[in-house]
Amino acid sequence: MRKSVLMVAGFLLASLPAAHAADKSLTFSKVDLKAANTLREQALADDTAWKLVESLTTEVGPRSAGSPGDAAAVAWAQREMKRLGFANVHSMEVTVPHWVRGEAQFSVLGPWPQSMPVLALGGSVGTGTEGLEREAVMVHDLAALGALPAGAVKDKIVFISNRMERKQDGGGYGPAVAIRAQGPSAAAALGAVGVVIRSVSTSNDRFPHTGALRYKPDVPRIPAFAVSNPDADALERQFASGKPVRLRMASTSRDLPPALSANVIGEIPGTDRASEIVILGAHLDSWDPGVGAIDDGAGVAITMGAAKAIGALGDRPRRTIRVVLFANEEFGTSGSQAYTAALQDQAAQHALGFEADFGAGPVWRLSSRVNDAQLPAVDQIFRALAPLKLARGNNEANGGADLDGLARLGMPLLSPDLDGTLYFDVHHTANDTLLKVDPAALRQSVAAFAVSAWLGAQYPGTWERVSATKPPRR
Amino acid sequence: MRKSVLMVAGFLLASLPAAHAADKSLTFSKVDLKAANTLREQALADDTAWKLVESLTTEVGPRSAGSPGDAAAVAWAQREMKRLGFANVHSMEVTVPHWVRGEAQFSVLGPWPQSMPVLALGGSVGTGTEGLEREAVMVHDLAALGALPAGAVKDKIVFISNRMERKQDGGGYGPAVAIRAQGPSAAAALGAVGVVIRSVSTSNDRFPHTGALRYKPDVPRIPAFAVSNPDADALERQFASGKPVRLRMASTSRDLPPALSANVIGEIPGTDRASEIVILGAHLDSWDPGVGAIDDGAGVAITMGAAKAIGALGDRPRRTIRVVLFANEEFGTSGSQAYTAALQDQAAQHALGFEADFGAGPVWRLSSRVNDAQLPAVDQIFRALAPLKLARGNNEANGGADLDGLARLGMPLLSPDLDGTLYFDVHHTANDTLLKVDPAALRQSVAAFAVSAWLGAQYPGTWERVSATKPPRR
Repeated sequence: MRKSVLMVAGFLLASLPAAHAADKSLTFSKVDLKAANTLREQALADDTAWKLVESLTTEVGPRSAGSPGDAAAVAWAQREMKRLGFANVHSMEVTVPHWVRGEAQFSVLGPWPQSMPVLALGGSVGTGTEGLEREAVMVHDLAALGALPAGAVKDKIVFISNRMERKQDGGGYGPAVAIRAQGPSAAAALGAVGVVIRSVSTSNDRFPHTGALRYKPDVPRIPAFAVSNPDADALERQFASGKPVRLRMASTSRDLPPALSANVIGEIPGTDRASEIVILGAHLDSWDPGVGAIDDGAGVAITMGAAKAIGALGDRPRRTIRVVLFANEEFGTSGSQAYTAALQDQAAQHALGFEADFGAGPVWRLSSRVNDAQLPAVDQIFRALAPLKLARGNNEANGGADLDGLARLGMPLLSPDLDGTLYFDVHHTANDTLLKVDPAALRQSVAAFAVSAWLGAQYPGTWERVSATKPPRR
Repeated sequence: MRKSVLMVAGFLLASLPAAHAADKSLTFSKVDLKAANTLREQALADDTAWKLVESLTTEVGPRSAGSPGDAAAVAWAQREMKRLGFANVHSMEVTVPHWVRGEAQFSVLGPWPQSMPVLALGGSVGTGTEGLEREAVMVHDLAALGALPAGAVKDKIVFISNRMERKQDGGGYGPAVAIRAQGPSAAAALGAVGVVIRSVSTSNDRFPHTGALRYKPDVPRIPAFAVSNPDADALERQFASGKPVRLRMASTSRDLPPALSANVIGEIPGTDRASEIVILGAHLDSWDPGVGAIDDGAGVAITMGAAKAIGALGDRPRRTIRVVLFANEEFGTSGSQAYTAALQDQAAQHALGFEADFGAGPVWRLSSRVNDAQLPAVDQIFRALAPLKLARGNNEANGGADLDGLARLGMPLLSPDLDGTLYFDVHHTANDTLLKVDPAALRQSVAAFAVSAWLGAQYPGTWERVSATKPPRR
């Protein structure tokens, strides 16, 4: 009976989260809120993050998994974390796949001969030196590919031309990227020998994009390229002629033996709740055609800049702030998988997660993925961010790819959402350079991450685990 | 005495151009002005020009002098002029230089190794297969290069980093392009073995540009590349480290024997003044990295579209409208030189010139280069263009490179000035694609050219020759 009453009371508390707002024990202290204001204003005037992304892109540049740049980035990150005064700076070795792009050439042979710049999709096999010359079939999506008559693409090249939609939250990416990931094996399963996709990109500039494909184990691995939007339009016009379209693909992409890389970790140690970790994640690797400024140099800079700002406060945080720069997010999330596996028995110590892997800001919205009982805390954090002019997002935040494993183990997430309106103009292209980072937007992003991570670390209540029955949306 | 009086009277007339406005014999007829209105409205609703630039970029694509695309463009232009109903469609053979780009690779070897996309400048010699590896010296302009101490660049690579200014009239190009044209020989004269320039570009995207260099006959020919603005910034940061900067250049650019190309010519025949020619010039060739949509597919489309619109009027023009699509503007203006040389004794028949070689519009201003006595006619034409919302430019129009020869022989120019604000973001880069042409701006440009060419052809007075003492500004 007694037990039943407690259960009912517990149920009532959980279902009436508004009641918590008045609960003093769950309200941030005036001291902590004042420190949050200081942090915000200092971050808005600080160029630590800018200097980090400038340094990373200039001194390291491209850093795809297994490349010399990857190793240079690991060394760079440890050096910079130490320079910024982080504690417990160390690396965690990670085995990564080592794919090399080589050269890729692509031409329309007919009806109207023309060469077009391409990028091989990440992980694509090469064509052999002789290349592939075949008639091509155009479809607009995977459903249309699947609906073709039997034999329609046998021994042909398939061109999949789907244009990604521009959205502030990046919501156009999911539907479009399925073609990149699954298109090659879907076409190969129907007998195709090569695939060309319209880039998963919102840009009208002539930058083909890259990004990982996922071969299915049971079908032949066929080469796959992406063309830019202007060239995809031009290819569509070649098909619209009604004449047979003949294409040539040639590339020297290949796999090398797996290589060693590392996650790089540094902390601002906590005080009375030091064993609880507020994790700020970003990834250290980049695709190779650009220098990884927005993906994910900016995330590296935002997380390091936010932790540095917290470390520079007079007050030390209650919980430990841990920055983890993950190895190889781009080509299979090796680093975050290794991290989650290595720290599986400490998963519950990861009290709250933040991930910055969506460009250089500004932050336009605060979303979360917490138990209802912690929503009032999120509301308080949102109010502390008011001068940064954010919208209030929902409680179904995705986090990002690198925190997915920890989120699935129940870690709550706070998500200062980076504005994705222009992100996919540049993402995974040669045009991912420092000039695509706006210093003011970057400072605002650091401020948003710093304030929310600081208050996350000071939260007087408990960041309850989030039920596994509420998986992150993908 | 009598003679003196006439001379004085003539002088007074010439110095009082306003007097002409009231002279009925120099005022456009109501019929012609009404036809101008019809022409303007029809051009604003017509997609002839769009279809031309779409067709040229799709079916021909890159068409640098001497290339297979060049020959295809000549065939395309004759076919399209005939299809549009032009009269006297013919080609005029032109010998053109035949330079081929080959491949170009560029890397910073130290202090921080990084590869960067480059384009060889047009006409650059190659490096040989072994490439060049040298220490580099950075300067910001030719004056700074000239001011270096003796021997400072001997056996080195010179990096010239001058950022072009964005202006609506394209006025930033002249000062910046001198570095591209003269920089290689200026550096070679001081003992340098290679040159890299910051692209003559206003873009923050990672597109290196190309364009002709001019080797001096008396100094060694050294290879010359351009890097994009983001990479020039990154290179400057390498120099800012204070450490020696070592570069590697490799390219297979080379000259082939001269080739045959052609100017393509078509007309809307005149009536009572048919022997007087209103010439509309654009160039058929393009640089090879892009598909030549804005440079100069748009000019081809604007001039052909304007002539087509005039030909579609019920009234035939008094003077002959002649469209000339010149061969090889980009690499030495071979086509216009051949045209001027071949028609030297008919130079005076070229009553009025228009050139479209500055992108796809809109037209933002009407400039001219006429004798003062014809300024009232320009004013009347300007008023007929009022719904297109142009500014009134001065009487010092440049025309363009292809009409320069005829202008120097005294041909008056009318210049519906194309907006150059964004032109140098795309000019001479791989990004010169159809997606950079705005269909509405293109229609407005056709309307402006059509109305002014039509009224130029109907002018009841004489388009007097312009004194050679007033050379076009360069």
